[in-house]
This record gives sequence, C-alpha cells and structure tokens, in this order.
Amino acid sequence: MKVKTTIKVRGYHLDMYGHVNNARYLEFLEEGRWQWFEKVGAFENVVKEGLGFSVVNINIDYRRPAFQGEALEIQTELISTGNKSAVIHQLVLLEGSDKVVADANVTFVIVSLKTGRPVELTQKLLDDFGLKVDG
Amino acid sequence: MKVKTTIKVRGYHLDMYGHVNNARYLEFLEEGRWQWFEKVGAFENVVKEGLGFSVVNINIDYRRPAFQGEALEIQTELISTGNKSAVIHQLVLLEGSDKVVADANVTFVIVSLKTGRPVELTQKLLDDFGLKVDG
Amino acid sequence: MKVKTTIKVRGYHLDMYGHVNNARYLEFLEEGRWQWFEKVGAFENVVKEGLGFSVVNINIDYRRPAFQGEALEIQTELISTGNKSAVIHQLVLLEGSDKVVADANVTFVIVSLKTGRPVELTQKLLDDFGLKVDG
Amino acid sequence: MKVKTTIKVRGYHLDMYGHVNNARYLEFLEEGRWQWFEKVGAFENVVKEGLGFSVVNINIDYRRPAFQGEALEIQTELISTGNKSAVIHQLVLLEGSDKVVADANVTFVIVSLKTGRPVELTQKLLDDFGLKVDG
Repeated sequence: MKVKTTIKVRGYHLDMYGHVNNARYLEFLEEGRWQWFEKVGAFENVVKEGLGFSVVNINIDYRRPAFQGEALEIQTELISTGNKSAVIHQLVLLEGSDKVVADANVTFVIVSLKTGRPVELTQKLLDDFGLKVDG
Repeated sequence: MKVKTTIKVRGYHLDMYGHVNNARYLEFLEEGRWQWFEKVGAFENVVKEGLGFSVVNINIDYRRPAFQGEALEIQTELISTGNKSAVIHQLVLLEGSDKVVADANVTFVIVSLKTGRPVELTQKLLDDFGLKVDG
Repeated sequence: MKVKTTIKVRGYHLDMYGHVNNARYLEFLEEGRWQWFEKVGAFENVVKEGLGFSVVNINIDYRRPAFQGEALEIQTELISTGNKSAVIHQLVLLEGSDKVVADANVTFVIVSLKTGRPVELTQKLLDDFGLKVDG
Repeated sequence: MKVKTTIKVRGYHLDMYGHVNNARYLEFLEEGRWQWFEKVGAFENVVKEGLGFSVVNINIDYRRPAFQGEALEIQTELISTGNKSAVIHQLVLLEGSDKVVADANVTFVIVSLKTGRPVELTQKLLDDFGLKVDG
C-alpha cells in the first residue's frame, strides 16, 4: 500500500538558501510514515505488543530544491522485509507533477521496548502488523 | 545568578527572510535554561523528588533580526518567585555588544510528575533547588 | 475572519516529557498564520509591494500538554490594529472540544524590505491587504 | 583535517521515545559541517565566488540512541572528491568514548548561485577552497 501525504512548504521550513532545509525533509518523511502507520494500522498494534519502530538507516537523495508556497506530495510504501529489518521507500514529488524533489530509503527494525533489542521479523509478526510488500 | 550561553547562528536556524526564525529562538532560550539549570543544580534535584519544570507562559520581544554567522549571547536569570510560579528572564544579545536581539520572560511551575499538578513553591523547596532571586 | 488549521501531534513534535515541546507550538502557530494569510490574501499582496510581515512579540500561554496522536485545531484571527502594529490571536484547542491547549497573541509590523523599517498601517494599506478586524 | 564539535543532548532534542529524534541528527551534522567550514575557511571564499554548497545525498546509520544530558562529539572530515561531487564523513560518538551513536556520509556539490547548476570541482577550485582529503 502506497500512502500519499501533502505538505505545503512554509517560510519556517526554509533555510538561508530560501529552500527547504535538508534536516526538515526528515520531518516530512516522518510525517509520511505516521500517515502510513495509521493506514496500515501498524503503530497501535506494535505498541500493544510492547514493541516499537526504530529507524537504523536513512539514505536520502536531494534532487530539486523546494520553495515557499510549493505543495509536496510524499509517497510512502514498504518495499522489502528481511529477517531483522525492513525498508520503506519514500518519494517526495512536487504535487501534481512527476518532478522528484527527494527520495529516500528508510530502514527500520522492530525493537522490544523492554530490552531495546530488535526482534525477528517473523511472517506472523509481519502479518499481525500489516507489514506487507506489494508484489 | 546570571548564566551566559553562546550560540552561533547557522544556516539551518534561518527562515525565508534570511534571519533566525521566531520559533528557533525558543530553542535558544531552552538551551540557555538548560545551562542555567546545570549551574544552579536544580534539574537533577527536581527529578530526584519526582518533580518537573513546566513552562506556562513565554512572552518574547523580537527586537533585531539575527543573521548567519552572528554570535548570540543568551543571559538567563531567575527574577521572581511567587506562591505557585516563578519567572526567568532571558536576554539575547549580539555577543560583545549591548545590542538586544530578543528578550523574554519565561514563567514556569514545578509539577508533580505523578499528578501532573503544580506544587507550592515553599521557601524550603526554593532553597533545596537553588531557586534564588538575586537582590 | 477566523481561520482554522488542524495539526495532528506526531512523535517528532514531542520532547522528553512526552508532550509537544514549547518551541514547536510556535511552528504550529506560524502554520496557522500562513493558512490565515492564504485566506485573507495578504501575503502575496504584501510581497508585491516590497513589504514583509515581521513578528515583534509573541505572548503564549501553555495551558494543557498535548500528546502523540491528538489532533489540535488552531484558530487564527486578527483582533486589533494600531498605528504601527497589529495583533493576531491564536487559540490552540483539542480538536472537537473546547479544551484549550495554548493561546497566544502575536504582534506584528509590516516592514519595508528595502529599509527594514516598519511602515505606517494606514487604512488604505489595511484595506489593500485585507487586514480587517471583525466587529 | 578532522574537526570536532560537541553538542550536549537537551530535552528539546528528544522525541516520544526519549532519545534524539532522527531528523535532529541532521541539524547536529550541519552544525558540525559549519564548524568544519570555519576551520577550512571554505564558506566565505565560496560565497565570494558566487558559489554555494548544496547537499545531494545523506546516508546516515543510527547505531545507538542518545539520551538527555549525554555529550556527543561530532567528527567531520572530507574523505573524497570527484569530478562533480565530494563526500564528507561525519561520525557521532558519545564524547570521551568510542561508542558510535551515528555515522553519515554527506555528498555535496558546489553550485553557481546564478545558474543553480553544479560546477566542476577542478584542482584549482579545491585548492582555493581548502577542500583537501588527508592522505
């Protein structure tokens, strides 16, 4: 499932160059993942089980600056799952176009909040949390 | 006791106008209060007692924009204590000058982390936490 | 005109106490003012005239902590205009309730981007920019 | 040249899990790069030439959560230069230890501020801007 989030670029998102600061994109991506979590229903279930999502890597390409007043569309999608970690791909487009502003792979693990250690991503766990790669 | 904190203005602090964004000053002020807490020794003692600081009002004047590369000096000082709340004054100067960039009064209460309710600021509590107004 | 903005509280808005950090509210308020600007049509016209909005004071009361997953409604309204400055009132409610999370008065001036100096808020200028207090 | 920057973790750096939020690290890294620019002397010279630094990729590993009160040491170093882009490596350590909190490769180009296009990283340009990889 691909979830779309719209964010309008405001003055407080910009930096000295008049475009969205590179750190701010990570908040835009996190907003996208929260909306994805809500759609997938994963977050509440993960918390209920005493687990939490933990980001272990973000690899982000900045392709085109974004300016005040532009609307950005963030597309968030689970693209792969492994034994211990899974990868969400996030694409930031200029809304209503195919112009890519940024895109990122976000690798996460699911940790036990008690031990702080990652748990194995068994098929049952992935099913329970709706973590399904389209294919 | 007046505690001085220096922060150098960087590109990521600015907004579309090329000067420090108004929200960012509140992080600068919070940094100043953390350094004040460390000097006063209040924070650890407050936590030990199951209490926490909670800001209830910030009244900030923005007097002069600050630009990339400028060094700001934040002066943080407790200026009054009441029955339930106390006030910290914070002055943001262009370092090495008397040019005022911003100044703020920050009113806080001390809350019980168990109940979430403010506690009375008795003289004993103020003494224990080093919350002393210079006179 | 009162403009309403909804923001959902996310993990990245919180601080060590698990509630929205006091600096973050100023970004929420700025988001509210941008949406108000858009409705009023003021921003583009102000820029066209070589002018800009500049915040000179924010006085914010923090009344109730806001937590992850809560939806906040920000109500933004011009409440008074003077010779040199004007005041916007912003109310942050727990959406769908009358519980006040925060409220603030934001005083601004309109500056000439050429000189950096505030201009007089003549009736013509207020009319041109749609800066009208409801009565 | 490796430049070291110290940042103390404060309450406003944390998120819902009580550790430094992943977006905030990008501000820590940017702070490290500003201090590196200052040491290398690159920034002012680049601006004088009508050029600017532009980040095109950040690849960051989050290895260990950082908590309120911990001091982080950010080590910033240019590690490679190519025809069009160069790479800065940034290591975030728990200060006074060899515990790695995060580490990142930051790939940047130098753009003409007039055209917005990257310029070729000639040896003369690298020499002029002090962009030298230790060998």
